[in-house]
Amino acid sequence: MSKYNEIKAALLGAGTVGGGVYKLIEKRKSEMPSKVQAELTITKVLVKNLNKKREGIPDEVLTDDWQEILDDPKISIVIELMGGIEPARTYILEALKAGKNVVTANKDLLAEHGKELMDAAEEYHKDLYFEAAVGGGIPIIRPLKECLAGNNITEVMGIVNGTTNYILTKMTQEGMDFGEALKQAQELGFAEADPTADVEGLDAGRKMAILASIAFHSRVTFDDVEIKGISDITARDIKYAGEFGYVLKLLGVARNVNDKIEVSVSPVMIPEQHPLAKVNDSFNAVFVHGDAVDDAMFQGRGAGEFPTASAVVGDVIATARNMQYDCCGRIGCSCYKNLPMQPVGDSRHRYFLRFLVEDRTGILAGVAGVLGNNGVSISQVIQKPAVDGVAELVVITDKVETRHLQDALVIFGEMSMIREVASVIRVYSQK
Amino acid sequence: MSKYNEIKAALLGAGTVGGGVYKLIEKRKSEMPSKVQAELTITKVLVKNLNKKREGIPDEVLTDDWQEILDDPKISIVIELMGGIEPARTYILEALKAGKNVVTANKDLLAEHGKELMDAAEEYHKDLYFEAAVGGGIPIIRPLKECLAGNNITEVMGIVNGTTNYILTKMTQEGMDFGEALKQAQELGFAEADPTADVEGLDAGRKMAILASIAFHSRVTFDDVEIKGISDITARDIKYAGEFGYVLKLLGVARNVNDKIEVSVSPVMIPEQHPLAKVNDSFNAVFVHGDAVDDAMFQGRGAGEFPTASAVVGDVIATARNMQYDCCGRIGCSCYKNLPMQPVGDSRHRYFLRFLVEDRTGILAGVAGVLGNNGVSISQVIQKPAVDGVAELVVITDKVETRHLQDALVIFGEMSMIREVASVIRVYSQK
Repeated sequence: MSKYNEIKAALLGAGTVGGGVYKLIEKRKSEMPSKVQAELTITKVLVKNLNKKREGIPDEVLTDDWQEILDDPKISIVIELMGGIEPARTYILEALKAGKNVVTANKDLLAEHGKELMDAAEEYHKDLYFEAAVGGGIPIIRPLKECLAGNNITEVMGIVNGTTNYILTKMTQEGMDFGEALKQAQELGFAEADPTADVEGLDAGRKMAILASIAFHSRVTFDDVEIKGISDITARDIKYAGEFGYVLKLLGVARNVNDKIEVSVSPVMIPEQHPLAKVNDSFNAVFVHGDAVDDAMFQGRGAGEFPTASAVVGDVIATARNMQYDCCGRIGCSCYKNLPMQPVGDSRHRYFLRFLVEDRTGILAGVAGVLGNNGVSISQVIQKPAVDGVAELVVITDKVETRHLQDALVIFGEMSMIREVASVIRVYSQK
Repeated sequence: MSKYNEIKAALLGAGTVGGGVYKLIEKRKSEMPSKVQAELTITKVLVKNLNKKREGIPDEVLTDDWQEILDDPKISIVIELMGGIEPARTYILEALKAGKNVVTANKDLLAEHGKELMDAAEEYHKDLYFEAAVGGGIPIIRPLKECLAGNNITEVMGIVNGTTNYILTKMTQEGMDFGEALKQAQELGFAEADPTADVEGLDAGRKMAILASIAFHSRVTFDDVEIKGISDITARDIKYAGEFGYVLKLLGVARNVNDKIEVSVSPVMIPEQHPLAKVNDSFNAVFVHGDAVDDAMFQGRGAGEFPTASAVVGDVIATARNMQYDCCGRIGCSCYKNLPMQPVGDSRHRYFLRFLVEDRTGILAGVAGVLGNNGVSISQVIQKPAVDGVAELVVITDKVETRHLQDALVIFGEMSMIREVASVIRVYSQK
């Protein structure tokens, strides 16, 4: 039944993941005929600098000329691992048009131009796979699109950024400040020199846009995601979370509530018994709720040379198998609905509020009064002893419409007895 | 590109899972054209008793005649949910031969006759999918066969039986005896009236045979699995496990050690920080280690009407998509190696040993001497105060070849100072 004896692929980018993919395909060379009924070889690797030595990749496969790959009719799979929007977008579109299948790990590109790429793949009946774009090595895209296809999925929650999970784990377990934990993460290679995309939640936001699009069958782009990072989280917030029985995580939450979609990335206090609360260090996890499967969770390494290469090579093998049966493009875009986004103000959450207040009587009554007048009911309160005339009041609310809380926050800003609303952090609650 | 406007399936069996599958496909009716580019309908349901009322399944689709389904050329997918070896085996072979694709949840059949069925599917170029056979709703078969196909997988560990996990959770959290916990599980419907297949580890053994075959690309059958159940586990063992920092689980362990396979199901003490130690109640989880992905874990509901139906319907959708592209049978048997099984005596484990001994001096020296003479070194010891002249001695060994421990146990049986070796339980150790 096999159409090909040999399948040739090109790699765009030879960074950490690119190198891992090259080495992993080499390592599995002898088994490829059993896996895909053909030899599978990476014959060209696109790089910017031909003179830079690439460990594990022979010089003769390197090229700095995209056209050479595009025009090579023997190359039927393009593996895009350059990252960024351009030229990755153009290269992928050109590759699909030229009849090549594409495997990519490019979350930035997919979260912004996913529809354009999926449409092109459909037009040319080619595969566009991207398992590595979310959760590194963790199988999650294919399970959502295939294994769980019988479900109406209403919730996807994810710890999808390893850097922030590492930082928050250090802050939780060792009482470190954010700055100290970030510095350690940078020293150990878990955080980049410019950590913005990670610590401000942008990376997680892109991944949640991709997950939400697949889970709810309706396109969600990066702009649709409400994003808040962890850079203003203090060791104090984490300590108080613990006192209430919660663990603080940077959590992506995507929900389909009455056919309106809400997707956010923000610090969330999760009950310590919840499976997501136990996912520590740089591990990632994705939690899914569907009407048939109920709860399911997938966890593993969200980044790194070989875990990410594992996902990429899984996609390459899937494409090769499709090529042998002439069924590429079989499972393309699954966004067959067009659901509106829920306005942020309408979303309902519980909140942890930490107030710095004057040390005098009537404060709790004042705060409770403002919350009550705005329809925000209180679930738990802790009042901390004053230091230097400033007391701390910590409140956890019931589930409220975010807009009601926002109204209350405006009033708190005008109250002289309140020095500062130092923290406003979401608290996990069931949908 | 679509070949079919309508895809018809038949269901064999209308028990709990069968009913769930029928209802779930009905529930997703309006979305099927978007998912598989065709209407998808169950047109016949094979039952033993036509007169029994089936909630949610209309009488007119019921039949008690397999030939009627087999001879219906419009039925292209057969969903086998009868369970047991015969007539399920014959029906599946006949269906494949007649050019129908098959989806099954039948772990008993796959663990014993998997090769015969996979060979038939290959011969007739048809799909044979069985995601529901292991881990209920948890996607694990397709992730192993596809997403993780780039890995050399060396270890699969699973809590793959919900009944025993429920019983052990109750014993751990509430200090119940085995009998008491079993009774409660039966009352709540988590255990069958005859609980043998669950509590003696047979059900888990079948699932581990299937997982090992897929993970290691080499056929493992039920007979190859070393099996020990939980019926002789006492509340005392669980309490002592806790004192050493372990949680007791019925764990399936499949390992590929130097191209020899060992697969066992037995009670295992797992360190309480390990992700598997936190999987409680009737939840299932499968932990995978591959050379690229490192550690990954999948957890969710391992049984139940709709979780299992989720897996079955995911397979039906996958088959329907393959039919539209004429690529059924694309990913068949992946056992392209033929690795030998490791003899049980050669397998290396740590052990928890609980001795009931006479209350006199020299016991520890005697026990330690026998272990030492047989090459079994001791990692930890607790001696418990004597009650009525009988003391308890608890030993955790280092990693030893099982045969050396077996030799020592023979000698302990002959020592008068040892009343009984009350427990011999494996302790988790890294490969």
